[in-house]
Amino acid sequence: MIRFENDYAEGAHPAVLQALIDTNTAQTPGYGVDSYCEAARATVRRLCEREDIDVHFLVGGTQTNTIAICAALRPHQGVLCATTGHIAVHESGAIEATGHKVLTLPSGDDGKITAAQVRDYVLAHRADATFEHMVQPAMVYISQSTENGTVYTLDELDALWQTCRELDILLYVDGARLGYALMSEGAMTLPELAARCDMFYIGGTKMGALFGEALVISNPAVKKDFRYILKQHGAMLAKGRLLGVQFEALLGNGLYFEIGAKANAQAARLRATLDALGVPMRYDSPTNQQFPILPDTVLAALSEKYAYSYWERVDATHSAVRFCTSWATEDASVDALISDLKELLS
Amino acid sequence: MIRFENDYAEGAHPAVLQALIDTNTAQTPGYGVDSYCEAARATVRRLCEREDIDVHFLVGGTQTNTIAICAALRPHQGVLCATTGHIAVHESGAIEATGHKVLTLPSGDDGKITAAQVRDYVLAHRADATFEHMVQPAMVYISQSTENGTVYTLDELDALWQTCRELDILLYVDGARLGYALMSEGAMTLPELAARCDMFYIGGTKMGALFGEALVISNPAVKKDFRYILKQHGAMLAKGRLLGVQFEALLGNGLYFEIGAKANAQAARLRATLDALGVPMRYDSPTNQQFPILPDTVLAALSEKYAYSYWERVDATHSAVRFCTSWATEDASVDALISDLKELLS
Amino acid sequence: MIRFENDYAEGAHPAVLQALIDTNTAQTPGYGVDSYCEAARATVRRLCEREDIDVHFLVGGTQTNTIAICAALRPHQGVLCATTGHIAVHESGAIEATGHKVLTLPSGDDGKITAAQVRDYVLAHRADATFEHMVQPAMVYISQSTENGTVYTLDELDALWQTCRELDILLYVDGARLGYALMSEGAMTLPELAARCDMFYIGGTKMGALFGEALVISNPAVKKDFRYILKQHGAMLAKGRLLGVQFEALLGNGLYFEIGAKANAQAARLRATLDALGVPMRYDSPTNQQFPILPDTVLAALSEKYAYSYWERVDATHSAVRFCTSWATEDASVDALISDLKELLS
Amino acid sequence: MIRFENDYAEGAHPAVLQALIDTNTAQTPGYGVDSYCEAARATVRRLCEREDIDVHFLVGGTQTNTIAICAALRPHQGVLCATTGHIAVHESGAIEATGHKVLTLPSGDDGKITAAQVRDYVLAHRADATFEHMVQPAMVYISQSTENGTVYTLDELDALWQTCRELDILLYVDGARLGYALMSEGAMTLPELAARCDMFYIGGTKMGALFGEALVISNPAVKKDFRYILKQHGAMLAKGRLLGVQFEALLGNGLYFEIGAKANAQAARLRATLDALGVPMRYDSPTNQQFPILPDTVLAALSEKYAYSYWERVDATHSAVRFCTSWATEDASVDALISDLKELLS
Repeated sequence: MIRFENDYAEGAHPAVLQALIDTNTAQTPGYGVDSYCEAARATVRRLCEREDIDVHFLVGGTQTNTIAICAALRPHQGVLCATTGHIAVHESGAIEATGHKVLTLPSGDDGKITAAQVRDYVLAHRADATFEHMVQPAMVYISQSTENGTVYTLDELDALWQTCRELDILLYVDGARLGYALMSEGAMTLPELAARCDMFYIGGTKMGALFGEALVISNPAVKKDFRYILKQHGAMLAKGRLLGVQFEALLGNGLYFEIGAKANAQAARLRATLDALGVPMRYDSPTNQQFPILPDTVLAALSEKYAYSYWERVDATHSAVRFCTSWATEDASVDALISDLKELLS
Repeated sequence: MIRFENDYAEGAHPAVLQALIDTNTAQTPGYGVDSYCEAARATVRRLCEREDIDVHFLVGGTQTNTIAICAALRPHQGVLCATTGHIAVHESGAIEATGHKVLTLPSGDDGKITAAQVRDYVLAHRADATFEHMVQPAMVYISQSTENGTVYTLDELDALWQTCRELDILLYVDGARLGYALMSEGAMTLPELAARCDMFYIGGTKMGALFGEALVISNPAVKKDFRYILKQHGAMLAKGRLLGVQFEALLGNGLYFEIGAKANAQAARLRATLDALGVPMRYDSPTNQQFPILPDTVLAALSEKYAYSYWERVDATHSAVRFCTSWATEDASVDALISDLKELLS
Repeated sequence: MIRFENDYAEGAHPAVLQALIDTNTAQTPGYGVDSYCEAARATVRRLCEREDIDVHFLVGGTQTNTIAICAALRPHQGVLCATTGHIAVHESGAIEATGHKVLTLPSGDDGKITAAQVRDYVLAHRADATFEHMVQPAMVYISQSTENGTVYTLDELDALWQTCRELDILLYVDGARLGYALMSEGAMTLPELAARCDMFYIGGTKMGALFGEALVISNPAVKKDFRYILKQHGAMLAKGRLLGVQFEALLGNGLYFEIGAKANAQAARLRATLDALGVPMRYDSPTNQQFPILPDTVLAALSEKYAYSYWERVDATHSAVRFCTSWATEDASVDALISDLKELLS
Repeated sequence: MIRFENDYAEGAHPAVLQALIDTNTAQTPGYGVDSYCEAARATVRRLCEREDIDVHFLVGGTQTNTIAICAALRPHQGVLCATTGHIAVHESGAIEATGHKVLTLPSGDDGKITAAQVRDYVLAHRADATFEHMVQPAMVYISQSTENGTVYTLDELDALWQTCRELDILLYVDGARLGYALMSEGAMTLPELAARCDMFYIGGTKMGALFGEALVISNPAVKKDFRYILKQHGAMLAKGRLLGVQFEALLGNGLYFEIGAKANAQAARLRATLDALGVPMRYDSPTNQQFPILPDTVLAALSEKYAYSYWERVDATHSAVRFCTSWATEDASVDALISDLKELLS
């Protein structure tokens, strides 16, 4: 079985694993205050071109989203996101478990929400005579890249950021697949992102780490006492140095960006084949996730050799599915898939 | 600096690390349903001599305690534990963050609570005319070994278990340092433990894993839907196989028990020296944590070369401190410490 | 100002107030275990034709919904309701504050959800490969009458109830305006309702009480320990007898149903006028809430003399508004409104 | 049966009831924004001699404590109180249900905590190397009068207030029985209290109202958006005017203070008798609650005619019990009790 079902089917990128091996016997204090974490924090600050940010290393994405959001909101406040947002759909109610409602805004096939949607929602809330009977929108959550593989442009992000500032609400960017987004064509840079939100995270799990996400906080109110909340949610890893070691291996010398670029290129190869074969795409993604709409018969044939994610039924005989590439995707695997697709679809 | 401050100062035991290296490029499904996790689950069942248990692999201790407890309780229920219990003191209110009160019972220097204390508390609650105005005790939490390094005997555990059954409340055992407890002199066996509680966990983080705890659930009501709650708390590791691989490396061939025995032996060497030097111990621990009461002047001298945990002030010139051994503790480190103690204290 | 904006603009129906006056100096135990509450509970059981129900008296609707729902669900479970459901929109996130997601199903202008929608949602959840990553639907919430003034028929309720039984999920009916629903034309009876849900409440606040809702629980699992959860949510009124006295006054001799019938009749008078004047109705309500779509100029004129609830903009020059009648609505008030409407609209 | 078991055995003081009768048919907007509430708020401000306070009317004490505390704390923060504090013991874990730990400080028979205890606890927390692993103390809760009937002096309150300011933590005063405290000998005035805390409430339920507590907030951060949180907790009464009417009846013309003084005087009569009979008191209370230690035989005899609260066993043949007076306690009732005590004890 060749696995394209997600971007976390293997362990760690060899360089990340090597860094863990190299540092295995070093003795350090626990809980993320060791020198490896400090070095990785310095690297994140350098790459973001901001010295005023706090950097915390967490284990996974749901954990990071949950803690970031609950640390920032008061009890009556909720977070706006796309109907397809990960926090709205695929975190088993983690945000609600901390007491906060996820307020959804409809998004199209691009999986994005707009500054105008946010402004309209917030102003409508504030203008409603019964506003105190409804959850107060106090934060916007987006993901970069989105669940549909698409990427917010700098202009789109900037509009969201200006709107959030105007409305005095927070902007948080889920970067589970940030490396793929940053390396897609025409994408914003990391400093451009870091300058336009209150918090975001640099995803590691889906970008070659064994596990780990680096949460960057620039908003002073959220920074305060954040480590207490990490601990309270079981997210303060005893051997915190494992996260520092991995993020330094990924970010210290550009590996993170190479991984993103390579996976995007593998996905583009697959996409080019699908386009050439006239296969429609469910979403128009420039990143490592591709969503072709294929005949069910073809999918059945593929599934004997390849793992992919079933996405949704499109019509009686076709379904959308997801193929992901990653740092670990080998040329031969993509070649084989391309070859089989050509055979099955011609 | 030679670190004795805790039992998680290094990475993983070499055999655990090697297992991660060996399996790094294998492709698996995510979220703990891979073959490595299945194998490790089978091993846990075999070692516990129970086929009817569910086994879930989590990342850390606070996370495990929180999820196990909140999955089992209804909103009005609380959990009984020693005043020194980890959930009562050192988890930043993680249990309360899920809505449940930690109900403390006084414990002596052995850090334990007794079946009689539990029975008295629960019966007093039920007899109180205003019982509905108070949190209902519905679970007992103990740790094995305790925060003070002591170990519940089989008789003590059995009494707690019988009492909990009688009272129709749950018994949960935090096994962050279970391997040290199981390998202490005269200790109960793993099957004996597994037969006498509703849930317990086999700690990995403090026993040679990079991270990870194996939660064993025998109570049917708690088993149901447990994976939803894992996910909701950000505890369903994307690359769940990392946990299966590590636990199989630890448990499959007895390494876990060797680690426990070796660390206990190192601690016993230290203890023998301290006893010989007439140093009083704050608690009488047969496991890898030792709590000598030392002159502050001696501690100041030691701290230039050794890291230890400060525990509490005993009198104007003496303090109790904690020294931990682990799988990684080298003979030379203990030798050096013993030698320095002899010199400083004679 | 003549107020039609809601059905709780006055104090209590005179008979309810008189009962409070008559019992004011009696001494009783607190917290709802007095003889007035016992009598009212017996009355509810008699009227429901069920001896196996538990009856709890609470203060208000949001409180009742919150406690009923959180008492019944485990942490990973959510509650299905219409997008217009009170718990989804107008309770400031009360359900989420207890950790549970409100899962919305689209409803049409009738404000209802159907058995088929529930079945489809639950079966789709259970069939999804990632079901554990999503909130588990475990309860259905409907209101009778709905937010749009409409009424579930016995067949509709029965289909929901059978579906919930089949799917092993709970059915809860919010009866804030139950009296208006029960007295609408062709409506189900109270015993018919009581036989077809796990919990419901008989609303008092909007039906002539100063305050108070009578929650009826037939599901044994939810019954257990319910008073603890009442107390935990600050809903165990110290002078609980106030609730028993009021509900006995309302229910003991049929006053509750008279109030419902009278208010419906007043609303019908208003509706007949609107129909005759060719005014379209936003929703087709047979109960005490009426939702005409009126020219903004007419609304501006009306608002100098009448209070009503603004509902939503319909087009550039028209808005939907809500007029409510209640036990307290005087004939003269409706006469005046009818007269003014005729003048303004002709 | 003559009831002395609590101070909420009857309905409302006749003047309060009359005010409800007088205003019953008036039409008002809902949710506490009516003119009765506004008038009562103005009265509270006048009596507190502070124009900068926000006043919210809630239904009961547990509800008020819960909402006040959860509105003010961030997720990792807890509230300090006496081990006997109402929130620690008798609210079924209401505070924990909102995610916050109640941190207890030992109190003696006076039921009070001191500024020194608070300072020591907070400074010890801040000095602990593992402070982020423990709940952060961020608020102090006291009750006035206390659970034991005792009263904080102005000096004691002032010391707590200065300490909280120094430490940058909040001070909240539970005034369920504030009227009894304010009217006890040598007590602080209402303006003196209002100047020395961040929040407090003026209890109505135990002081002659049918129900209701007036929460006074002076801290600007807690004021913000408070009504959302009221609604979220089901504490925004639909007919909010009922609370405004009652508090204006109690506070507008001094009735509240007369009630406190009268009940204290009744309690003092009882106390004088007990003292003369040589009956020891469990606590030395100057307010409406009295806690004699009586022979069990005497208690058995008394219980045929009087209701009192059982407090605790003192020795094999004696128990402490509680007798409460209130606005409703008649002279004849106290006379009868005094007479019976004399007979039984001589």
